[in-house]
Formats: sequence, C-alpha cells, structure tokens
Amino acid sequence: MVEPPHNRLASRRAFAGRIVKVDVETIRGPDGSTLELEIIRHAGASAVVALTGPDRSDPGVLLLQQYRYAASGTLWEIPAGVLEPGETPVECARRELLEEAGARAEAFEHLTTIYTTPGFTDEQIHLFLATQVTVGEPRPAPDEFIEVREVRLSRALDMIRTREMQDAKSIVAILYAARYRFDR
Amino acid sequence: MVEPPHNRLASRRAFAGRIVKVDVETIRGPDGSTLELEIIRHAGASAVVALTGPDRSDPGVLLLQQYRYAASGTLWEIPAGVLEPGETPVECARRELLEEAGARAEAFEHLTTIYTTPGFTDEQIHLFLATQVTVGEPRPAPDEFIEVREVRLSRALDMIRTREMQDAKSIVAILYAARYRFDR
Repeated sequence: MVEPPHNRLASRRAFAGRIVKVDVETIRGPDGSTLELEIIRHAGASAVVALTGPDRSDPGVLLLQQYRYAASGTLWEIPAGVLEPGETPVECARRELLEEAGARAEAFEHLTTIYTTPGFTDEQIHLFLATQVTVGEPRPAPDEFIEVREVRLSRALDMIRTREMQDAKSIVAILYAARYRFDR
Repeated sequence: MVEPPHNRLASRRAFAGRIVKVDVETIRGPDGSTLELEIIRHAGASAVVALTGPDRSDPGVLLLQQYRYAASGTLWEIPAGVLEPGETPVECARRELLEEAGARAEAFEHLTTIYTTPGFTDEQIHLFLATQVTVGEPRPAPDEFIEVREVRLSRALDMIRTREMQDAKSIVAILYAARYRFDR
C-alpha cells in the first residue's frame, strides 16, 4: 500500500472564483523536503449519457456541440454541469439534461464517478445513463453556446476512435456504457 | 455549427503557481450580458498505457497506486506527467514511464488526446500505448507517493467496471486501447 502522508504543514486560499477556488498547500515530501502544491477546489459535477429511440442494439445518444473558452473551440460533449448547493448527483444530472439538451428521462443509472485530473483538482464527475428519454427545448445558461445533436451510439463510438470527440468525461461515459451496459 | 463567440472583453491573471495559472476573463454572453469566466491554464501532459508480457490477448498493464493530495487518497492510474518546456508529448510519455514506473518501451503509439475538464481548464492529456516494455527501478519525484503494479488488461478492465479505478485519463486510455487496439 501507498501510505497516506500525514504531512500537510499549511494551507492558504490563493484565489476564490465563481466555479473554482485555489488552495496552496505546504507539505513535507517523503524525503523530508518541503513542497508547495496547488489544489483547485471544485464542487463536483454530473454528466449523463441519454439514450433515445427504439433501437436497443444501436440507440441514439444526445450530444452537445459546445463552445468552450478554455479550449478556444467547439467540443463534442454529453450534457453535464456543476452540482448546485444541496443537490444530489442524480438531481444535477436530471437538471442539466433538461437545461442543456431539453430532455427528460424516466430512469437514471449511476455508471461510475471519475476524478477529472487529480494531479491538481479535487473535481469529481458522476456519470449516469439515462433511458426512456423525451426530447424538448433546451434552456442553456447565458454563458453557454450549445447545439444539441442526436447520433447513433455506433457513430459516437466512431467519433471517439477518430479523435473527433476529445472531452474526457464524455469518452469515459460512452465507452463505459457501451462496454458494460451494451456488451459492445 | 456553434459560432465561436468573439466577445472577450478583458483578461487578468488572478493566480500564477508552479503547475497552474488562473485567468479571469470577462466575456459578453449571447444575450448581451457580461460574465466572468475562470480559466485554469496548464502546460498539458502525457499518459501511457504500457503493455508487458508475452500474452497478446491479455497482456500486462503497468499501473500506479498513487497518493493524490487533491483526492485525499490513493488512486489507480497509468504513468503520466506534465510536459516540460520544449518537450514533445511522446518524449514526455517516455520520460514519465521511466521516472514513475521505471520502465522503458521500444514503441509508442498515439491513441487520442483529451481535454480533462474543459469547463474550466485548457489542460490536454496526450494518451499513448507503449509496447515492448522492459521494467526497471522507478525514480519518482520528491512529491510523489507511488507504487508500481502490473495487472492483466482483463483485471484493469474489471477495476474500471467496479469503480475501483476512478482516474479519467487512465480509464479513457485503457478502454480506448482495449476497444480500438485489441478488439476487446
């Protein structure tokens, strides 16, 4: 086992924003040296693979084409968003599916939960599979540039293979659902 | 298509650390309102699925058990690390495989490149498959608590299914390699 190092000497908040906070932690390393680590604190998020249509072997998947300032471009993603105070992961998944894709689902199943990039942030994203989906009108937030697309699961898998889809949470959720829920 | 919004009004650096920098950008939203976005700037990273052993159908995979301060616990991950100045992604993958797992590989193949969490950071991780691997002694950095483990690919896939593995880059790289390089 890797021993948890009980060696945090100090912590200071270096930045507090709307979505993230930055703590600089002073720790003692395994060799006795002192190091500073930057940790981005985040409330966590949920994301959802929403399946549509009657074809059980190759269902439709709701994808978003979303402009991302951080990426300076448009990415293919599944509906997702940050947990609001007091909200459970599945409530967040349900709300974001409605807001971003305009869709409602009867059933939500937890797939897995990921650390997006644990070298510098505590952000976790809870991944869900949503079924029995009804698609309506999206209501994106004012800072979101989103278009909703419905593609076949087989097409989404091709977008992953060809590197057209690059968003980590979306790739994990789609590959996980395909392998462990559809045996494909 | 989603139109790229050419509406950045201002940008200020709110924090500059060892690994990340934080920019606060003022943008005009699609409805004309003004918003502030926090963007974590990161140099990018590489990560590598290193395959060992003679069994082509179920090879060994080098995993790390790594203590992560941000996660307040130990995670299962593949070898990975931040790009050094002037370093190419494959050079970074080769260096991190040697430093973290003590392993050398003859062949590196690019799998895909992911945005870890594009809602708030520009970090990209380049994922590689490494083959013809020779395992030696790891040389972790002073702030790293790491133990190296070799498991079968089938076991790594089980760790993903059962949620024992939670690190996004590792899950993407292993599921991608299994599906698109091993047809399994």
